[in-house]
Amino acid sequence: MQDWNPTSYLLFEAERTRPVKELAARIHLPQAINITDLGCGPGNSTAMLCKQYPKARITGIDSSPAMLEKARAILPGCRFEERDISGWQPEIKQDVIFANASLQWVNDHEALFPHLVAQLSPRGVLAVQMPDNWQEPTHRLMRDVAEEQGHSQHHHEAILSAQTYYDLLSQAGCEVDIWRTTYFHVLPSTQAIIDWLSITGLRRFVNHLATHQQEAYLDRYHELLKLHYKEQSDNHILMPFPRLFIVAHKSL
Amino acid sequence: MQDWNPTSYLLFEAERTRPVKELAARIHLPQAINITDLGCGPGNSTAMLCKQYPKARITGIDSSPAMLEKARAILPGCRFEERDISGWQPEIKQDVIFANASLQWVNDHEALFPHLVAQLSPRGVLAVQMPDNWQEPTHRLMRDVAEEQGHSQHHHEAILSAQTYYDLLSQAGCEVDIWRTTYFHVLPSTQAIIDWLSITGLRRFVNHLATHQQEAYLDRYHELLKLHYKEQSDNHILMPFPRLFIVAHKSL
Repeated sequence: MQDWNPTSYLLFEAERTRPVKELAARIHLPQAINITDLGCGPGNSTAMLCKQYPKARITGIDSSPAMLEKARAILPGCRFEERDISGWQPEIKQDVIFANASLQWVNDHEALFPHLVAQLSPRGVLAVQMPDNWQEPTHRLMRDVAEEQGHSQHHHEAILSAQTYYDLLSQAGCEVDIWRTTYFHVLPSTQAIIDWLSITGLRRFVNHLATHQQEAYLDRYHELLKLHYKEQSDNHILMPFPRLFIVAHKSL
Repeated sequence: MQDWNPTSYLLFEAERTRPVKELAARIHLPQAINITDLGCGPGNSTAMLCKQYPKARITGIDSSPAMLEKARAILPGCRFEERDISGWQPEIKQDVIFANASLQWVNDHEALFPHLVAQLSPRGVLAVQMPDNWQEPTHRLMRDVAEEQGHSQHHHEAILSAQTYYDLLSQAGCEVDIWRTTYFHVLPSTQAIIDWLSITGLRRFVNHLATHQQEAYLDRYHELLKLHYKEQSDNHILMPFPRLFIVAHKSL
């Protein structure tokens, strides 16, 4: 798969940064010192953490060199490491592990979440936000078009239920705060939905196709999007985008 | 219908106050002077507005004398008026109309929402939060038991779709920010669900019944709740509670 495009990723910066702030607002640990931004991308979440915790030692972890280059440029005072999230283990226990829009790319959450809690200091906090749009028309239609046009689909392990995360984390000794927010993003057109998703969820459906296949795929996808997302009276489109938030305060 | 019980209403204060803060955080009008808290209840939302806008003239409106008495006691510096929301019209245009968990009790939102926008000053903001749990098991089961036991049900006009509110408010000259948050409230038992809802949504199903009918209703309701809300591994119950948030910035 091609590396991520950090410039495109920041196109919808206000929309992508809002959940970062809402997630951080639920962490009740002002004295946090060791903080990891797990899957930091181009550093927008890391920058917000630096502002909120000016005295903390903050490390950004990402597997994308392009993203990390961008992050290092805007935050020269922070430490960044190129590493995969699965199997990640810090040298010292962390007070806050912040994972915004990253863990949905990692498999086996039944093992991952307790592993992350084990990397926390005794009163540490795990804060997670994941897009939860697998059942939205945007994502159902991606799968429908792939099937219709005979393209292979990689197996995707959908994220777990709120109830399952609650059990995993309470069993790991945490107090658990879970909520799901659906943002009704106002977009100028259905093409803007494609622009948004081509940076993230669409990549796995399109990147491995030949150019003419990509065009056929996107044409058909656009056609179906238009059927599902009707124009509002001012010609804009509302794209509902659900995100699952989990904040676990370790209380062992 | 009996008057509201302000003490019981505040039992779940942290849970009920969180959406108030999240709604207020999306109002971008720090210079607001004239503010109305529409359906102010016992004054917890009004208190939050007083803190956020220390220089503003804030008026709380509610139809319940018991609620207003409580509100006046905690906020002697604020003005409170006993009035119905439908047909409410302030003497001067308001910079912020804040309606937390109140408009769901008022009918005909197609007329109400444009009417409220008309009460705003030129750059004013309408901020609304409404429980959106009509299709949740908690509320479906209320209706099921009433039907099963042969009790009459008042017609309830469910709140409108996000898309409809968007059109109503953009046509009224507003920029519209809509989101829906489902909080997974952690409760000690299914009985706690009844304690919560008996203060609000259950009232209309139970208040008009004779005592023995109330008991039969609540017994059966409890039985069905237990079937739908399974205990988590730590014996707690998660009650998903969706709320719809609408913030409309007038831009005429």
